[in-house]
Amino acid sequence: MMGVSIALVHYPVLDKNSRLVATSITNFDIHDLSRTGKTFGVWRFYLVNPIPAQKWFARRIVHHWKEGFGAQYNPTRRAAVELVMLVDDLSQISEDTAAATGGEPVFVATSAKPLANHISFAQLRDRIRQDKQEFCIVFGTGWGLHPSLLEDIDIFLEPIQGVGEYNHLSVRAAAAIILERLLGKGQHPEPQNT
Amino acid sequence: MMGVSIALVHYPVLDKNSRLVATSITNFDIHDLSRTGKTFGVWRFYLVNPIPAQKWFARRIVHHWKEGFGAQYNPTRRAAVELVMLVDDLSQISEDTAAATGGEPVFVATSAKPLANHISFAQLRDRIRQDKQEFCIVFGTGWGLHPSLLEDIDIFLEPIQGVGEYNHLSVRAAAAIILERLLGKGQHPEPQNT
Repeated sequence: MMGVSIALVHYPVLDKNSRLVATSITNFDIHDLSRTGKTFGVWRFYLVNPIPAQKWFARRIVHHWKEGFGAQYNPTRRAAVELVMLVDDLSQISEDTAAATGGEPVFVATSAKPLANHISFAQLRDRIRQDKQEFCIVFGTGWGLHPSLLEDIDIFLEPIQGVGEYNHLSVRAAAAIILERLLGKGQHPEPQNT
Repeated sequence: MMGVSIALVHYPVLDKNSRLVATSITNFDIHDLSRTGKTFGVWRFYLVNPIPAQKWFARRIVHHWKEGFGAQYNPTRRAAVELVMLVDDLSQISEDTAAATGGEPVFVATSAKPLANHISFAQLRDRIRQDKQEFCIVFGTGWGLHPSLLEDIDIFLEPIQGVGEYNHLSVRAAAAIILERLLGKGQHPEPQNT
């Protein structure tokens, strides 16, 4: 049992006009999600991008912080980026997780919009604690995960609720909130009434 | 009553060797914290940086998204950056908050390390809900707030707990978690036992 991994999908995702696009890997996403993942005990951070030039870029950043100058300059970043693995798609995540743990992951998608059959944070937290399955929490970039990828998702997690109409968190902010609610220590039974 | 504002301090903060420095304003910090703030009902986002070149840079970014090309391209970013105000120091925050609300803010600092006299998330959440005071949640950049600034802090909030020794969240991630725990709807009474 390794527990929870995370995936940041750069393809297939939507642009602002709901068209299929690939987004660019960014330095900030790599660092923020790996540091957040490491803090909350995530065992692997999959960067999902099938484009060779993008993988080359990501490999350079990871190398810098894992083995290059950055590893000495900032060891805490090194510990975080060690979680990163570059993959083309979800099937490579399944393969890697199966090879590392003996079991394929349950894919969990998050969304700013409510989706059918979603489960609550508390329900997923309980399932993770039962410790019988691997879970991979999948985050989208751009304007969200493309419908073709949603077919491979097993569980939809309830959206994070803001206080009003506005709900446009960055993926860095959303991932932090979600991982803290699912895995953080200073926690949080289900609310009685809200 | 406006409730809660946030401040991101670029000076005075510490570098990795605990020396006093000023850090640079980054594009990602402006967007992430303003979007997180807007989602959780924060009424103002103070960027604290007394360096003229840095204020000029920040003003350009804010202008682009508030009134320039970005305002049309992405209206949700516009709504978020409208929260931003550039200030030199905490005293300017007090002045602005007093002018806008009639009361000076209670300054709350967050820290990755446990500090003396900290209060819990649930305690601060209750105080905010009582709705009698303005609160400004102060975040540091670099390696954290400089001791000279801590003298002006009224309340220290308990640290976010990871699952192990590693606790190196980005300020973008930490701010997201803290605002969701203090202001989010899908919430969270105090844990019975953790």
